[in-house]
Amino acid sequence: MRSDLPKVLHPLAGRPLLSHVISTARLLSPSKLCVVVGHGADRVTQNLADTNLVWAEQAQQLGTGHAVTQALPKLESGGTVLVLYGDVPLIGSGTLRALVDAASQGHLALLTQELDQPKGYGRIVRNGGGRVARIVEEKDATEAERAIREVNTGILAAPGDKLAAWLAGLGNDNAQGEYYLTDIVAAAAAEGVPIQVCHPANVHEVLGVNSKAELAALERHYQMNQAAKLLDSGVTLADPARIDVRGELTCGRDVSIDVNCIFEGRVILGDGVKIGANCILRDVTLGAGTEVRPFSLLEEATVGANARIGPYARIRPGTALEDDVHIGNFVEVKASRVGRGSKANHLAYVGDATVGSGVNIGAGTITCNYDGVNKHRTVIEDDVHIGSDVQLVAPVTVGKGATIGAGATITKDVPPGGLTLTEAKQQTRPAWKRPTKRP
Amino acid sequence: MRSDLPKVLHPLAGRPLLSHVISTARLLSPSKLCVVVGHGADRVTQNLADTNLVWAEQAQQLGTGHAVTQALPKLESGGTVLVLYGDVPLIGSGTLRALVDAASQGHLALLTQELDQPKGYGRIVRNGGGRVARIVEEKDATEAERAIREVNTGILAAPGDKLAAWLAGLGNDNAQGEYYLTDIVAAAAAEGVPIQVCHPANVHEVLGVNSKAELAALERHYQMNQAAKLLDSGVTLADPARIDVRGELTCGRDVSIDVNCIFEGRVILGDGVKIGANCILRDVTLGAGTEVRPFSLLEEATVGANARIGPYARIRPGTALEDDVHIGNFVEVKASRVGRGSKANHLAYVGDATVGSGVNIGAGTITCNYDGVNKHRTVIEDDVHIGSDVQLVAPVTVGKGATIGAGATITKDVPPGGLTLTEAKQQTRPAWKRPTKRP
Amino acid sequence: MRSDLPKVLHPLAGRPLLSHVISTARLLSPSKLCVVVGHGADRVTQNLADTNLVWAEQAQQLGTGHAVTQALPKLESGGTVLVLYGDVPLIGSGTLRALVDAASQGHLALLTQELDQPKGYGRIVRNGGGRVARIVEEKDATEAERAIREVNTGILAAPGDKLAAWLAGLGNDNAQGEYYLTDIVAAAAAEGVPIQVCHPANVHEVLGVNSKAELAALERHYQMNQAAKLLDSGVTLADPARIDVRGELTCGRDVSIDVNCIFEGRVILGDGVKIGANCILRDVTLGAGTEVRPFSLLEEATVGANARIGPYARIRPGTALEDDVHIGNFVEVKASRVGRGSKANHLAYVGDATVGSGVNIGAGTITCNYDGVNKHRTVIEDDVHIGSDVQLVAPVTVGKGATIGAGATITKDVPPGGLTLTEAKQQTRPAWKRPTKRP
Repeated sequence: MRSDLPKVLHPLAGRPLLSHVISTARLLSPSKLCVVVGHGADRVTQNLADTNLVWAEQAQQLGTGHAVTQALPKLESGGTVLVLYGDVPLIGSGTLRALVDAASQGHLALLTQELDQPKGYGRIVRNGGGRVARIVEEKDATEAERAIREVNTGILAAPGDKLAAWLAGLGNDNAQGEYYLTDIVAAAAAEGVPIQVCHPANVHEVLGVNSKAELAALERHYQMNQAAKLLDSGVTLADPARIDVRGELTCGRDVSIDVNCIFEGRVILGDGVKIGANCILRDVTLGAGTEVRPFSLLEEATVGANARIGPYARIRPGTALEDDVHIGNFVEVKASRVGRGSKANHLAYVGDATVGSGVNIGAGTITCNYDGVNKHRTVIEDDVHIGSDVQLVAPVTVGKGATIGAGATITKDVPPGGLTLTEAKQQTRPAWKRPTKRP
Repeated sequence: MRSDLPKVLHPLAGRPLLSHVISTARLLSPSKLCVVVGHGADRVTQNLADTNLVWAEQAQQLGTGHAVTQALPKLESGGTVLVLYGDVPLIGSGTLRALVDAASQGHLALLTQELDQPKGYGRIVRNGGGRVARIVEEKDATEAERAIREVNTGILAAPGDKLAAWLAGLGNDNAQGEYYLTDIVAAAAAEGVPIQVCHPANVHEVLGVNSKAELAALERHYQMNQAAKLLDSGVTLADPARIDVRGELTCGRDVSIDVNCIFEGRVILGDGVKIGANCILRDVTLGAGTEVRPFSLLEEATVGANARIGPYARIRPGTALEDDVHIGNFVEVKASRVGRGSKANHLAYVGDATVGSGVNIGAGTITCNYDGVNKHRTVIEDDVHIGSDVQLVAPVTVGKGATIGAGATITKDVPPGGLTLTEAKQQTRPAWKRPTKRP
Repeated sequence: MRSDLPKVLHPLAGRPLLSHVISTARLLSPSKLCVVVGHGADRVTQNLADTNLVWAEQAQQLGTGHAVTQALPKLESGGTVLVLYGDVPLIGSGTLRALVDAASQGHLALLTQELDQPKGYGRIVRNGGGRVARIVEEKDATEAERAIREVNTGILAAPGDKLAAWLAGLGNDNAQGEYYLTDIVAAAAAEGVPIQVCHPANVHEVLGVNSKAELAALERHYQMNQAAKLLDSGVTLADPARIDVRGELTCGRDVSIDVNCIFEGRVILGDGVKIGANCILRDVTLGAGTEVRPFSLLEEATVGANARIGPYARIRPGTALEDDVHIGNFVEVKASRVGRGSKANHLAYVGDATVGSGVNIGAGTITCNYDGVNKHRTVIEDDVHIGSDVQLVAPVTVGKGATIGAGATITKDVPPGGLTLTEAKQQTRPAWKRPTKRP
């Protein structure tokens, strides 16, 4: 991967590869879920916040069989063991269930596939009767074996106690000098344990990530799948090839999403929501009928119904906008609550503020929430009209129904009603001449 | 479609599916154009502003033959009738002309196509001589008939009086208990009326929309076609897969369009216009040599020649910018006229203003056009220089050649020439100490 | 091309087609590089700044042989001549080296390829022994010759003196009445000079550009190749189909680039740099660990390590940002130096300024650098805190550690330390009533 990041931590759709595998494994309700870590173990264990994982360390890299051996002591005895890979992220739970079902009947269950170009993979060698006899790695294979097109995906399930016995018997007398997990197949066959073969529901399930190009290809596959699911659920997408969902996007009825939008974390869009082109939403909930116009960026915010956000609006974490709120172009809102029907339509900064309902915040108005060391809150009560280019130096409260004149610098609380402004006597110097161009 | 919107109103390239079909039909100059509506009839009739349409209601959904029967009384007798579908939006006028020409000679003209996967379609059954005998729906077809690969598209043309007679003779003794339009084929064959078969010029012409996935696929096909037409006409496109034209885009010579732009409504770009990446233009006319820089959004505006708009410029409805105007980043212009060579390059709001020529509007300047209930106009005469962060409280006029100092709040008319400002006495409190961090 | 621009000047990945060919040719270290120009010669010679080129004019368009004849007198005698085309931009240097190697051994070296659809191309006619006998143009070819699938790409290399002799012997007795360069093949064959055939390493190398559609197709091929190279070098790309590199992008380790970014000119990204979606960078260097958030546009700037730029930041030419600088949303920086750890996070304009380290520039603050005719500099020393909506009327210096109050209009130098502000007496008119809605 040409990276300092352990491979299994590289993100696919915003989550580490390993996290995808763990999520899928969780769908099978395993009694224990053990991750074997080697290279970069600390970064991997720190990164995965999942406290229900069991970790096993593989201090030396002595092969896949050796890796699984590290995990066995951490698992309950007598169960069924399913072996997955942190860099094979799109394995499907349906495919895994078939494997586990077979293994739970005492079989060794292998996930294999037929490839036109089997080069590089371990081949599935069958005996005269067509039964699986063993798996041979490419490097150890004969010419005839290399012609076999059925290949090993590496994923398998087995009864735990049998697996332990087979692993204990592994040797490392092969081209790489490693303990191959795949050698348990020959051991099972020799014991007469039935070996059941399953195939993945689609080819992407067993694709591993060994380069940034493979990562990008799987990302696109994943995103096309996400888009297909959204379309199936009735969402209108302007272009299924230009949407990125990095998390969980839940849509109501008659939602439409224009080109080039990105959804991260948990995003919930109510009925009839419209998302304009080039918007980015992370951990956002939008009420029914709300429209987000192009070039908007919303993070960790909730928005009520029938609101209108953007274009070029930036909504930052900790913001709650009630129904019918309008946030317009070049406006930033941060850690604020804005009441029903209030508006900030142009070039404003609303930070650390509590804004009532029916408030109009003029163009260029700024809540001065930061004194250089501390943040302070601004309170704007219901039905306030704030003129353009006003500075509200927090902490400050603007009383209900107050009007503030353009350009005012508000450093003290504003009483309800009336007009508050700062003196700004307009005067003209008629004789003044413009500067001239310097040579 | 999993939607509350009637299917034929779902937009393709910004217009309802039905509207595409009607536009194409109009190219044939029909004497009457009748739309049969059933489900959601009111929304359909209200949505289509086309006053030259004739509407027929199909109160009960008794089949395609029944639907066409509702239309016949609305049409002139003795003419040729062409049957189209509101959810088959990309049918081509050339294909339709061939059908109408055949029907006008007294034939029944069918649009059919050969499919490798005919499943789901009505099959074209031919007699021993190879003549079309009838159409059999999939559900009513025998095994042998299902093997037929020539399928019915549903689109047909016929002499009106013959069509009326055939429709009158339809029965509903079939798998679905419906009056099938397709049964008129057998009736025509039985009468010895020649049945002429036409094929669509390309397969997309006869694709129907029955899901959001199909809608998205047709949208992409349509957009790729639009891009190909633009390229053919000499427009430079950075990426034909990343342009969306939802309306009519007319380009002069040597126009170039960067990636990810959207054009809506009627957009006219003069010779040598450059559109930067990620721009959105709706109902806009741009003069020759004008450049729109990335991330700009223009709606219902006209711009002269050699203007420079953006990046991050928002031009709102009712704006007219003359030649050589510069509108820069984070600037919003609304319902304003801006004269030749004038500039507003940074962080400004120009709304409801009349701006002369040679004017410079400083960074952060705002026309305060809204008093909370009414909008007022700002007039800025020629050759005015407005400093940064000025508020122009409308209604207000700034006289020719005036200069306004930075930060001024202008509430009264400004005389021509001279320097106008508001008092702002700078003072320093040297002993003042910064606040300290709260615990 | 339907354009006023000479074809070879149309840009591919931001550079003229011809410039790509010249760059590739330069990789072979030719002693002379001669460009034959005809139509639009002046624009071509003016456009190419490369002073090491030799120009030859082809005043009349008498064929490819005639064109090459114009170049010969400009070249050194006794050398090897390689013939390329200004509208075949993606030819590879490896392919060219093979041709030149063959020609330097006294052979005529032809670049040919096998096509399933040879229509339109000159065919390679071989004699009974399989040796190349001549090239026949489609228009002059017999039925049998048209069936030949090996076609001429036009690119060839030959010993210079032999080439001169063959060209001198060319006639124009053919369908087009032109001097065909390809006729030298028959001449070489007649003389018994060995004719060596090479093939391009991939098909795109020999594709010519004759329409905007072909240009767009080559652009996409080129960009996919660029993306593949970036992936190979370890860069993480969210979507290899949505990145445009128009110049040279150099990336450190663990760089990630989100969808829809554009890189122009020479861009250098340090280790761990993250570029958000929809960013545009031209001639920019970013230090390690710096993050550029979505919708940012940076041009001709250098940024230190661990800086945070955007979202919606515009960095204009002549800007240098040191380590740990934060430039936030709707902020424009132009021709300024900003010291370590300084911040301008919201809605500001910093132009022609020298900003020290540890400075905080408040929301809406503007450096008023332009007096209508001249630009002036603003100097802000270390550890200054500037409140919101401050105007700094340049030329002006703000002393070390000074604090400026919100809304101040600073027209005189600010002393170090203390608090500087402009008087703004807040007052309320309690009896004031809001305007009422006009009828």
